[in-house]
Amino acid sequence: MIELYELAGADPSIRFSPFCWRARMALAHKGLEARTIPWHFGEKKLPKGTEKVPVLVDGGTVIAGSDAIARHLEAAYPNGPSLFGGDGGEVHGRFITAWANSVLQPGFFPFMVLDIFAQVKPEARAYFRASREKRLGMTLEQAAEGREEKLPSLAAMLSPLRAVLAEAPFVGGEEPSYADYTVFGAFMLVRCVGTIEILAVDDPIHAWREHMLDLFEGLARQAKTVRA
Amino acid sequence: MIELYELAGADPSIRFSPFCWRARMALAHKGLEARTIPWHFGEKKLPKGTEKVPVLVDGGTVIAGSDAIARHLEAAYPNGPSLFGGDGGEVHGRFITAWANSVLQPGFFPFMVLDIFAQVKPEARAYFRASREKRLGMTLEQAAEGREEKLPSLAAMLSPLRAVLAEAPFVGGEEPSYADYTVFGAFMLVRCVGTIEILAVDDPIHAWREHMLDLFEGLARQAKTVRA
Repeated sequence: MIELYELAGADPSIRFSPFCWRARMALAHKGLEARTIPWHFGEKKLPKGTEKVPVLVDGGTVIAGSDAIARHLEAAYPNGPSLFGGDGGEVHGRFITAWANSVLQPGFFPFMVLDIFAQVKPEARAYFRASREKRLGMTLEQAAEGREEKLPSLAAMLSPLRAVLAEAPFVGGEEPSYADYTVFGAFMLVRCVGTIEILAVDDPIHAWREHMLDLFEGLARQAKTVRA
Repeated sequence: MIELYELAGADPSIRFSPFCWRARMALAHKGLEARTIPWHFGEKKLPKGTEKVPVLVDGGTVIAGSDAIARHLEAAYPNGPSLFGGDGGEVHGRFITAWANSVLQPGFFPFMVLDIFAQVKPEARAYFRASREKRLGMTLEQAAEGREEKLPSLAAMLSPLRAVLAEAPFVGGEEPSYADYTVFGAFMLVRCVGTIEILAVDDPIHAWREHMLDLFEGLARQAKTVRA
């Protein structure tokens, strides 16, 4: 059985890491079952040689990091639907991953940071606060201040995604690809722990998110959230 | 002989449109020669049915718009090197084009707007000013104000491009693709009419730009600029 180590909240059935959702969706894309193992900030019990989730254990192979996991699945399970749409798809998808990493997720972070903090286990809160405040250059509370008023800037940040989804159902075109999962991971963070709605219902991104939630018999839609 | 209608400056040998550069580079990628025909804002003498440059005339076929031109070249000249790297490359490349259109070029625009304005033919300046000020919601001079101090925000905007180019020589991987040309077009605008340097020499994007200028026997490097 494949194993996937995932970041978990204070409630271990809440799994809110964008990177772990990339891996979870990539597994489902390939039609693979996996046993998910919760992991919390600061815990040390990850497979040898790895330090951060997601970690995939597939037989004797241990792979850390969502992108490496996706490449492993594509190579090890070539008969399932492609995650990338060939080499050209994989290489161009890297830009989309880079956008998700360097624009989308940091852009979402101030909107989510206090919601995430509320889900961090009490014993890991000091670590979380110190590491994130260092990265942000301000307190968590300062980062989150006035988030409702900042929603228009969030909508503007999403413009390339919106333009693509106005023309096709998925970032990957007619079918979802790993690029969709890299972007969707950030939206799953918002869904699982967020206490704010960030998309207007007439936004093409909203319709795409609904489709993503429905994939694989509603895998993502069934995930536990703090609100339900 | 293939013909390409291109935006030209008051000096008709200065060709500064990002979209036209996409088409020019795509033609060169396919090893195709084209006669370029200068066109100015407000002129009406484009091939029938078209309103905006670039316009490609290839035998009896007239194609408007850089993306449509690239798709035409890929289909009509399948034996040349692929512009997209297959269907998966084409579809994922659309996100990169959307980023170039909705983030990169609008982001560059305030830095370039007065430099562009200086290259618009006198009789087209009223049109240019009115249309751009409407889009910007401010005067050209207001948009350009304090541009040197805003260079750090420009560097931050380029983060996904920088992340990709830190790992591979081109957006398209080991070889340039149409995605490189869509991004490069914006940098050619800056090169041809700009009076400001926007990249630090140790930025991976700087090295990529040098490679792009060298492609096709220095096609882009040889383009006339206002500075030379």
